[in-house]
Amino acid sequence: MTPLPLGSKIGILGDGQLGRMLSQAASRLGFKVVVYGPDAESPAASVSAVSKVARYTDEAALDRFAAASDVITFEFENVPVSSLEYLVSKGAKVAPNARALGITQDRVLEKTFARSVGISTVDFYEVNTLDDLEKAIAINGVPALLKTRREGYDGKGQVWIRHADEVRAAFESLNGAKAILEAKADFLREVSVIAARGFNGEVRTYPVGENHHVKGILSTTLAPATISETLKKRAEDIARKVLEGLDYVGVLGVELFVLDGDELVLNEIAPRVHNTGHWTQDGCLCDQFEQHIRAVAGWPLGDTTARFQVEMTNLLGPDILAWETLSQEPNSRLYVYGKDDPREGRKMGHINRLKRAV
Amino acid sequence: MTPLPLGSKIGILGDGQLGRMLSQAASRLGFKVVVYGPDAESPAASVSAVSKVARYTDEAALDRFAAASDVITFEFENVPVSSLEYLVSKGAKVAPNARALGITQDRVLEKTFARSVGISTVDFYEVNTLDDLEKAIAINGVPALLKTRREGYDGKGQVWIRHADEVRAAFESLNGAKAILEAKADFLREVSVIAARGFNGEVRTYPVGENHHVKGILSTTLAPATISETLKKRAEDIARKVLEGLDYVGVLGVELFVLDGDELVLNEIAPRVHNTGHWTQDGCLCDQFEQHIRAVAGWPLGDTTARFQVEMTNLLGPDILAWETLSQEPNSRLYVYGKDDPREGRKMGHINRLKRAV
Repeated sequence: MTPLPLGSKIGILGDGQLGRMLSQAASRLGFKVVVYGPDAESPAASVSAVSKVARYTDEAALDRFAAASDVITFEFENVPVSSLEYLVSKGAKVAPNARALGITQDRVLEKTFARSVGISTVDFYEVNTLDDLEKAIAINGVPALLKTRREGYDGKGQVWIRHADEVRAAFESLNGAKAILEAKADFLREVSVIAARGFNGEVRTYPVGENHHVKGILSTTLAPATISETLKKRAEDIARKVLEGLDYVGVLGVELFVLDGDELVLNEIAPRVHNTGHWTQDGCLCDQFEQHIRAVAGWPLGDTTARFQVEMTNLLGPDILAWETLSQEPNSRLYVYGKDDPREGRKMGHINRLKRAV
Repeated sequence: MTPLPLGSKIGILGDGQLGRMLSQAASRLGFKVVVYGPDAESPAASVSAVSKVARYTDEAALDRFAAASDVITFEFENVPVSSLEYLVSKGAKVAPNARALGITQDRVLEKTFARSVGISTVDFYEVNTLDDLEKAIAINGVPALLKTRREGYDGKGQVWIRHADEVRAAFESLNGAKAILEAKADFLREVSVIAARGFNGEVRTYPVGENHHVKGILSTTLAPATISETLKKRAEDIARKVLEGLDYVGVLGVELFVLDGDELVLNEIAPRVHNTGHWTQDGCLCDQFEQHIRAVAGWPLGDTTARFQVEMTNLLGPDILAWETLSQEPNSRLYVYGKDDPREGRKMGHINRLKRAV
């Protein structure tokens, strides 16, 4: 693909904070940004040249969006695959591709794909009926994690089954949604790798970050994490297999469990820039947002070397109310997403704290 | 002043690249940005929540702008002082103040002010008539630089007088504009200092940068410049005198000539973020744009320590056409302003090249 020239229009499906930071990166490279999402006053729309306010399934609006964009990407993994396919059918250039989105939207397809390219996952079982779940628990035992196959994030749409007598209640809590039962991973650490692939197949990987979750929501990422060369190589290898297996163009995040002996098991693939990659804004010269824009615009990928070790901390809900103190912290940089309502658990911003030069 | 809370509206008069970078910094801190300028598709409007398209003297538009903004600042030093005064008369909070703008808009007032607070300038002479100019040349001798008192930038509106017989032609070239004759400064280097002052009087100064101009237009800034402690102290002292003498709130740039013996002479004060401060985007954690927003929003000022020595190079006119090569340079970051027409000498973008960790 010929690199899109300056002044080209980048369409972004999704209008949250990831779209906001993608939009700012795209503008800095000289692109015009068209944001498409359901809200008029969204984090992304308020920093973008053009905003299209519509549902993701509104074909007339998608037509106008396609006409206004030289390339279309997304910041939100729950955009309907059919919407991407519709855009492609109308001649739009879309990256990442619809197949990659479809696979990563569905936890059964995702793990099946991972295994097909030689990536370890926890044991998993497709669950459509109570009978499926009972059989799966009989084979796997407890504890095990029941999740909806689709959607759900930050710990929503999932329930631990710790005793056999919780099976029915767990199944009913999903309200008939198709599900997956996952074996418990006995992991020592949770890490993630952010990686990019260009239209020409070039792959670049950022240093691995170590993540800490609180109540199922990412709290901090420390990157580069202190890891062995073996683990580093394995993480990079997994990222490459995912990117190539999906014929992916853009940035994605791969969450991994680290088991004893530096064994890595896939937790989840996020087909977009990722919260665990926010540290790159202050750790690297080319952050994950610029990198994604470079990839989808057909530009050469940027430098993923870490210059600083950074601890990224999410500001969830009322955490953001401490902005005055946070803004005075030395060696740090504050990012606020421009959302009004700081309700519990909502991602309102983050702070990158520089720990040391690398 | 109580710090403006998240979600407050920052109004920016002026819609060029400085407004663009101010707007992005303000958004990152959680502010909503209202840009006011003559162009609908401007560098700043395309990255801002709200854009008011109007002339700077349109009182009805200024009324709406004041109503939509919690604080108003400017990125363009040729905004009419009367417009700022009008906004203040309507109850708007404006920073920097109108007096500071008025003084720095006029080269005679600016140098008179500088001397009044103990800052050296070159000798200068007010020129309203040909007779004034002839008398000034008789006292000062040649070479000397004739400039319009107001406006003119990047070498426009100024002419060198190298021989006494050029006086009439030089005077006539200004088409009757009020003027100033300046003695030639025998300088070794041109440096600048970017500094900020908050509502509470706190002053912070960035490391001094060394500037190189080509055909009267800034080409590069290298910062921190290699300078003696004496020069550093003198430059900081000058910045503080300017900020305090103008009761200034916000960021400004002070251009200085370095004479033999580390003597400093004021060249020009820019009452706004400044091209010679762009290096701070990659040299410092809090760049000049964030710093200006912090100051005018009543936030505590940010860290001005340099973490990298950076060489900033302006991309003028057709220089920007090399974006594909520039975007692949290691250790650098590219900034594109989103302007369409790369005409000769026009500031289209810049590139920050990291030289070394500091």
